[in-house]
Amino acid sequence: MHSYHFQMLGTAVFAITGVLAVAHRELDVFGGLVLGVVAALGGGTLRDLIIGAPVFWVDDPNYVWAAVIASVGAFFVGRFSRSSYLLLLYLDGFGAALFAVAAANKVLSMHLGPLVAVIMGVLTAIGGGLARDVLAGRRTLLMSREIYATPILLGCSLYVLLRRYAPDFAFSGVLATALMFGFRAIAIHRGLQMPTWLTRGAHTLIGHDADGHQKP
Amino acid sequence: MHSYHFQMLGTAVFAITGVLAVAHRELDVFGGLVLGVVAALGGGTLRDLIIGAPVFWVDDPNYVWAAVIASVGAFFVGRFSRSSYLLLLYLDGFGAALFAVAAANKVLSMHLGPLVAVIMGVLTAIGGGLARDVLAGRRTLLMSREIYATPILLGCSLYVLLRRYAPDFAFSGVLATALMFGFRAIAIHRGLQMPTWLTRGAHTLIGHDADGHQKP
Amino acid sequence: MHSYHFQMLGTAVFAITGVLAVAHRELDVFGGLVLGVVAALGGGTLRDLIIGAPVFWVDDPNYVWAAVIASVGAFFVGRFSRSSYLLLLYLDGFGAALFAVAAANKVLSMHLGPLVAVIMGVLTAIGGGLARDVLAGRRTLLMSREIYATPILLGCSLYVLLRRYAPDFAFSGVLATALMFGFRAIAIHRGLQMPTWLTRGAHTLIGHDADGHQKP
Repeated sequence: MHSYHFQMLGTAVFAITGVLAVAHRELDVFGGLVLGVVAALGGGTLRDLIIGAPVFWVDDPNYVWAAVIASVGAFFVGRFSRSSYLLLLYLDGFGAALFAVAAANKVLSMHLGPLVAVIMGVLTAIGGGLARDVLAGRRTLLMSREIYATPILLGCSLYVLLRRYAPDFAFSGVLATALMFGFRAIAIHRGLQMPTWLTRGAHTLIGHDADGHQKP
Repeated sequence: MHSYHFQMLGTAVFAITGVLAVAHRELDVFGGLVLGVVAALGGGTLRDLIIGAPVFWVDDPNYVWAAVIASVGAFFVGRFSRSSYLLLLYLDGFGAALFAVAAANKVLSMHLGPLVAVIMGVLTAIGGGLARDVLAGRRTLLMSREIYATPILLGCSLYVLLRRYAPDFAFSGVLATALMFGFRAIAIHRGLQMPTWLTRGAHTLIGHDADGHQKP
Repeated sequence: MHSYHFQMLGTAVFAITGVLAVAHRELDVFGGLVLGVVAALGGGTLRDLIIGAPVFWVDDPNYVWAAVIASVGAFFVGRFSRSSYLLLLYLDGFGAALFAVAAANKVLSMHLGPLVAVIMGVLTAIGGGLARDVLAGRRTLLMSREIYATPILLGCSLYVLLRRYAPDFAFSGVLATALMFGFRAIAIHRGLQMPTWLTRGAHTLIGHDADGHQKP
């Protein structure tokens, strides 16, 4: 199986988990289609816009077809058994790791520097899900303690470090992917959350209402 | 009346319906102005960014003026009679159809393929409204059963099909616009919603809370 | 102190106030980091995408470091005394004024016209905060009566007017910044809100539910 096939599989899995995350709310097939496609392609689209590259799916519509077919399929299947849903969660974690490494690699090959590479790795992995949540009126993962993005951040940092000293793409890529997927898989398996010392509880700022806006 | 005048009228109508959709909430004139302009120009802006074209209103500020004047006007007039509000809804559907065909045509003329043309037609027609709803904290149309985007999707698909076999822009454009506007007009007139077999009701996914996040 | 140092300070202040605005909600350090960085860099990123310029922080990662360090610092410090919080509010108003003038100047130097210059000044000043609020699920400032963006709009308009007749950048810039900061400082100090004649109260549109969607 080529890297290209992996990317198609990753796109389809992102679309499926994207639709399932909102499928417990009332929505029609068009809404499901758009939200699945946004979840699957949104992160890479933002990345390409910011680094000034042509948007990847405009040149290769296969990505769109993978996202469209997977979204509509997930919309109509809808209920998954607990075991196949868990399998999807692991595949989603694997796909996020692959996309993050591919994005960081793309940025490094454009000589845009290691910091931008890490940011774009994270943005590619979580940007689509954030856009999907915003469009669906759903609390984003930024406001939860779910361990989803932290493995990506650590893995991309490891990747750019390794690439500085060991320019071998394959070796660094496999190691970073293994770290990201391993960390995420443990988090899924054990239901881990961010530890409390890395979390802030609810407390009120002085002189602000519930939304943090200034009081008159 | 030239196609250019139609576009100015469409922009103004998008701005007016954009402001009216949020005018029942508390907001000041600046908020109304921004939301109206976003509703009117947001979809085309996203389209141009993604296809790598210069953003249309940066080159021609008349679009901005049309949106600004219409937004501020709608903010202060605010209450429309039932009949003029209905007229606006029909005009909005007509504007969406025109913008969708113009966008699909722009993409085809850049040789970016029929699938991208359909996507950009839909994005141009609904992107501004989605951005407006997100900024206003309003449920987006993706999470409703309103029949707004489905006619656009069908009309753009028809348009790219017709253009493949009948390269005459005018004929294909008029037919697609008629389909989109006719379908939308019937939906407004009869208060149609997406049929239930194309809609998913509320049901809970296993092991997820109300927002679909993983439970610990 | 160079203009460059001012910009780094402004970026850091935007990140700090960006984190503090959401710090009363439950979020972990990764969420705080992303929201702070989005608040600090989001407005300028949107501006550069729309005017077709390379995104500023891709070329100069110092902006990213300033935002990252300030965000993580603000996340862990969290509670500020009332006086240092007020100082931050004033600094934030000053930073917004500086960024707005810098953005308007950038657009004028690219010969994109005065209207685009005003829009980009406002977008640069408020775009990051809007994106942060949307990602945090917070009511945006568009839906409040806070006087934050109106001084920016007036100041940018003054700036492009002055530049038309007095091409001296420094003079026009200082005057516009003084207007913007002065107006905002008075609004902070006196807790001003938009006057009611520029605000619309809650009222129901005919035939629409609470979200303004068409009723069946």
